[in-house]
Amino acid sequence: MGGIKVIGIPMSTCTQRVLVVLIEKGAEYVVEPLDMMKGAHKQPEHLAIQPFGQIPVIEDGKFKLFESRAIVRYVAEKYEGQGPSLYGKTLHEKALVEQWLAVEIEEFNAPITAAVVQLVLGPKFKGIPADEAIVSASLEKLEKVLDVYEAQLAKNKFLAGNFLSIADLVHLPFLFLLVGVAKRGEVVTSRKHVHEWYETLSSLPSWKKVLALAA
Amino acid sequence: MGGIKVIGIPMSTCTQRVLVVLIEKGAEYVVEPLDMMKGAHKQPEHLAIQPFGQIPVIEDGKFKLFESRAIVRYVAEKYEGQGPSLYGKTLHEKALVEQWLAVEIEEFNAPITAAVVQLVLGPKFKGIPADEAIVSASLEKLEKVLDVYEAQLAKNKFLAGNFLSIADLVHLPFLFLLVGVAKRGEVVTSRKHVHEWYETLSSLPSWKKVLALAA
Repeated sequence: MGGIKVIGIPMSTCTQRVLVVLIEKGAEYVVEPLDMMKGAHKQPEHLAIQPFGQIPVIEDGKFKLFESRAIVRYVAEKYEGQGPSLYGKTLHEKALVEQWLAVEIEEFNAPITAAVVQLVLGPKFKGIPADEAIVSASLEKLEKVLDVYEAQLAKNKFLAGNFLSIADLVHLPFLFLLVGVAKRGEVVTSRKHVHEWYETLSSLPSWKKVLALAA
Repeated sequence: MGGIKVIGIPMSTCTQRVLVVLIEKGAEYVVEPLDMMKGAHKQPEHLAIQPFGQIPVIEDGKFKLFESRAIVRYVAEKYEGQGPSLYGKTLHEKALVEQWLAVEIEEFNAPITAAVVQLVLGPKFKGIPADEAIVSASLEKLEKVLDVYEAQLAKNKFLAGNFLSIADLVHLPFLFLLVGVAKRGEVVTSRKHVHEWYETLSSLPSWKKVLALAA
């Protein structure tokens, strides 16, 4: 009963980001789907809890929170004593989790989103074929970011150190669309340690469960 | 001594973001300037601690950390018991700080940066006049974001509630360049509560000190 209500849809990357962390922590949750095709996310009722008209939003009792990357931090902190410590156990570990969370949103997210919009989301939801010039330019930017990841993952099994954290998990939805769905993951699989990291993350039972929910 | 070494330059917005939080917390710090004009941030020595070739980086004893938004969280957490509580005092307050930190980086940062690059950074550092079409388009996007801020700040004095937090302070460097330097702050000053919020933030003694360091 005391579970977290996730207002969103399991096939959305941002909702997946939240679900994989909830499942990894063994937290109780329930998904309340929103009919995005009918524009439910732009209706006053939803805008009252998410003023930008996006998903997901969570409700934990009376407490409401939006922005997937804020929600995963909340879940990791609330369930600190349960399941794997996804936020680091010390001040320094936590700071490094935050460092790589910042890298994800500032360096990684834009180029991989641009590529995936062309390769997967445009063709699937709008019937628009991929613009290969945009794909190439985006993957080129992404490669420079993944070079930094490769060097970091050569030193540690995960981004913030030798422990799985929310900094790793936030990358998974878009990585999976690029590698697992679009089958355009050469930028990932050509880098030994990035490849191993992706294999580890995408093999997590929590992620398999997210994919099952999205299917 | 026991202070935090900030490798950066006080006229950089990202360095300012860190400095205002350090000063607000009353933390000991020292700035170690980097000669960006000579490309010191792209040299191997700096790339070894900041692989993307950016500033700032902090050194706290042997611990090194980059990404300004990760650093401000670290400073707020490390000095939790000293100065104002800039990260919220409860799980829910902290989650709301994170929500507005996420809004800053996902909604606010891109349009205001695009405007400020045209209005201030291009003319000042590259001698390139502002492209007013880009300025208009960016400010139009920013207005939609500030409409959400206006509604939020009508309910609370600050973004995450009735307490100053790092979620407010991270906005200050670019807001100041737009309003205080470029004198193009109509999007801010035309919104009552956003204007009051900006006045409160830009009047903080900590921010005045950052400006003095940058002068």
